[in-house]
Amino acid sequence: MGFFDRLRERIAAADSVVSVGLDPDPDRLPAAVADADLPRWAFNRRIIDATHEHAACYKPNAAFYEDADGWRALRETVAYAHGKDVPVLLDAKRGDIGNTARQYAEVLDEVDAITVNPYLGGDSLQPFLSREEKGVFVLCRTSNPGGADLQDLELADGGLLYERVAALADAWNEHGNVGLVVGATAPEELEAVRESVPDLPFLVPGVGAQGGDAEAAVEHGLADGVGLVNSSRGIIFAGEEVPDGRETDDEEAYFGAAGRAARDLKRRLNEYR
Amino acid sequence: MGFFDRLRERIAAADSVVSVGLDPDPDRLPAAVADADLPRWAFNRRIIDATHEHAACYKPNAAFYEDADGWRALRETVAYAHGKDVPVLLDAKRGDIGNTARQYAEVLDEVDAITVNPYLGGDSLQPFLSREEKGVFVLCRTSNPGGADLQDLELADGGLLYERVAALADAWNEHGNVGLVVGATAPEELEAVRESVPDLPFLVPGVGAQGGDAEAAVEHGLADGVGLVNSSRGIIFAGEEVPDGRETDDEEAYFGAAGRAARDLKRRLNEYR
Repeated sequence: MGFFDRLRERIAAADSVVSVGLDPDPDRLPAAVADADLPRWAFNRRIIDATHEHAACYKPNAAFYEDADGWRALRETVAYAHGKDVPVLLDAKRGDIGNTARQYAEVLDEVDAITVNPYLGGDSLQPFLSREEKGVFVLCRTSNPGGADLQDLELADGGLLYERVAALADAWNEHGNVGLVVGATAPEELEAVRESVPDLPFLVPGVGAQGGDAEAAVEHGLADGVGLVNSSRGIIFAGEEVPDGRETDDEEAYFGAAGRAARDLKRRLNEYR
Repeated sequence: MGFFDRLRERIAAADSVVSVGLDPDPDRLPAAVADADLPRWAFNRRIIDATHEHAACYKPNAAFYEDADGWRALRETVAYAHGKDVPVLLDAKRGDIGNTARQYAEVLDEVDAITVNPYLGGDSLQPFLSREEKGVFVLCRTSNPGGADLQDLELADGGLLYERVAALADAWNEHGNVGLVVGATAPEELEAVRESVPDLPFLVPGVGAQGGDAEAAVEHGLADGVGLVNSSRGIIFAGEEVPDGRETDDEEAYFGAAGRAARDLKRRLNEYR
């Protein structure tokens, strides 16, 4: 079964299109997990316990796992998410060539989908795209201000660079396993990309801490009901808002806040589904 | 002292602009290191022993270290290269936003320079660029055929995308720590980029296994004598050409071939310096 079919089933089961970003910033981990053998894994496990009912997907960003303990924490996290029947999308934004790209693609043995960077072109993404059962989300329009530096450049034969990337990704979608990353901070861009590629599911980041538009994310992000709207810090660090926040020994209070934040985002998004 | 000043000193000391790519593909490691505790580190150590006299720089590609043992092997490798007075450029091609980019940039605590992907724009690269003493090589024109998919797109206000990236990188070079990655497989592109940004050192991949043009790499890749021409497989797996190749127990024969390949490339490039 392909990734997007599995994701469709998960979306139905959880009644949710929420992607929970697992970005366990070492500087923000709460006292409750600081003494664990692998604090990032201890943190993620509790976040998964608190949020899995509301999660269509978990999205660990590879940046937070790039050391020896980090890869152990990531592997445990993936296994635990799978134990809760939630697929895992590794937000790695990889892009390299030849034998190096093939090496990067081996991480797809462990996770269900990945984000990739299109700057090196179609052949650089083949080792990912050829894994028919795995999802490949191509960066298209990102939610940061500097995203415009390259992505909004106007092309000589019409359109903007990110629109061309959307069209290329559509052409690369031989196996029905390609999605796009399109930020929610520019709703009109979401709409424009959706019109040009009606069939590609989007991963829409930027709805939580970055303040993007939830209605536009749902209206344009889903393709035939399938797509993901991500929040990372807005969910996993919601516990910082409870009394005593990070310092509390009360794990239930801290991680309960994450569970409520995931539930609330699910409900907010479901208003528009 | 900034990265490019240190690199200039190393180029003078080794009389070499050779970057040795440390891509220890697990499927190609020789019998001599297969039983080591950390085979990639055991392999890299012997490669460094054999090649360091001829190396201006070592360039491990992050793809080959993306697991728990891999990061241990990478850390040992970096320390060992530094012990031989050779700087280390991590070929990571990273690009991400906000707190995630900051997290990726922490790897610069350990290495001397990094490659980054420009697709997410200038703000995504700030956490790297702001490390004034570290080198930041921005992907510009890559050596793979698909590199043309995006990089050769013609822009409405003139020029091609990779030329715009070169100009942007030049503008991002506030601290004198920016270089470009420009492949050697298209010498006329090397020349065009060099004309537009006379001051940025290039990292030129593709001269070894990929068959790029050594003369053009040296003529256009160096800025005031500073730059790097990389070979990975052409050096580190040169031992596969000796009798018995990978199967031999004769470490000296296997790794000696790598040393000779590095020396030969150094001499070939020095003809044009």
